[in-house]
Amino acid sequence: MNIIITAGGTSERIDDVRTITNSSTGRLGFAIGTALTEKYGERIEKIYYLHGLRAAYPVHAKVQPVAIGGVLDLQRELQRLLASEKIDAVVHAMAVSDYLVHEVTTLDRIRGTEDPENRADLSGNKISSEIDDLVIHMRKSPKVISKIKTWNPAVKLVGFKLLSNVPHEELIDVGYRLLQKNGCDFVLANDLAEIGKDYHRGYLIHKDRTYDTMETNEEIAEMIAERILATA
Amino acid sequence: MNIIITAGGTSERIDDVRTITNSSTGRLGFAIGTALTEKYGERIEKIYYLHGLRAAYPVHAKVQPVAIGGVLDLQRELQRLLASEKIDAVVHAMAVSDYLVHEVTTLDRIRGTEDPENRADLSGNKISSEIDDLVIHMRKSPKVISKIKTWNPAVKLVGFKLLSNVPHEELIDVGYRLLQKNGCDFVLANDLAEIGKDYHRGYLIHKDRTYDTMETNEEIAEMIAERILATA
Repeated sequence: MNIIITAGGTSERIDDVRTITNSSTGRLGFAIGTALTEKYGERIEKIYYLHGLRAAYPVHAKVQPVAIGGVLDLQRELQRLLASEKIDAVVHAMAVSDYLVHEVTTLDRIRGTEDPENRADLSGNKISSEIDDLVIHMRKSPKVISKIKTWNPAVKLVGFKLLSNVPHEELIDVGYRLLQKNGCDFVLANDLAEIGKDYHRGYLIHKDRTYDTMETNEEIAEMIAERILATA
Repeated sequence: MNIIITAGGTSERIDDVRTITNSSTGRLGFAIGTALTEKYGERIEKIYYLHGLRAAYPVHAKVQPVAIGGVLDLQRELQRLLASEKIDAVVHAMAVSDYLVHEVTTLDRIRGTEDPENRADLSGNKISSEIDDLVIHMRKSPKVISKIKTWNPAVKLVGFKLLSNVPHEELIDVGYRLLQKNGCDFVLANDLAEIGKDYHRGYLIHKDRTYDTMETNEEIAEMIAERILATA
């Protein structure tokens, strides 16, 4: 089997030194990559491991790391791999920015109240540090997950949904909607409020809306590895 | 001697999962900490190593790591250390955000054109992914470097200035102005265009505007370590 794992967070460039970063540690993707190579190594041919710039990747002969910057990098690389390689499953654990940087501007410029004699200098590769009200104007990014099955309808797809402190039913609902909308085979739903240093509760939602419940990173990783291989 | 090193980048929180990050690797601070402990270990009592969340710190009995999130965390921690400990030098290599997140809003709300029947939901711990034109409104952050000598006038202070692709004279000018404005003893000026995988050109500017020129991370680190100890 050839598997793509995406893990860590994307970084949208504001200028040469600043980015908007989705602060995922990439721990879950790392654990899934590790579970796949350690427990099912003989059935794996290759894992393409698309990781955010600050996320670690499992070092293993069958793991090929690919560093990803922003959402558009991720989209290009996924499309390229799905078009050129025989991929069996995509485990899409990366925290992908919902927004791209559209423009860096100022409050006065948006409101049309900028003094024409004293325009803020937003040229150059690094934004001036002397602007009073800096505005980062962002627009929705493409939903990469929605394209995966259009690029390869046969691929097994595992989606991920991380919410923050919502009621349990809402978490399962939102996860299930993600599954339906994007043709996922499974969605791992989790809530920041249920993640700590030594525990990580996760719900692996199936197509019939039933779900498995796991209590640690490792349990989640093993369940996902098992489910991918069982259905492959 | 007791020394504070700041290294890596600050992260300003947008919501529970997004930050604006200054993308410093912290390599320079790491090299300075390493040069100090390896070459001058017997003269060092303690290094307080204030590092960005993603930056590594030298593991050494005399190095005490302190994780720093945003600019206000950095300010609080520096002030506390300078008030409570006998600090001889501050090597302030951290890439500190020039801006704090003031408000997360929308373009329509700023312009006063938001439909009152269909207001964007910006409450909660994680911003909705369904906003058309998201705006992150930022305001200038406090200049932490300018406060260091007011907290402890006797401390030796090394400032850092990283620019992107500017003429050499401008780089030295800007670095020297930073030195004068904040009472630095030295400023290390460098330009992204002169930093690569295996080289890192740096100019250590002195109070008389002369400067040393170094070609690698390690040379910069050794020069700074030497200058701090020579003037202590």
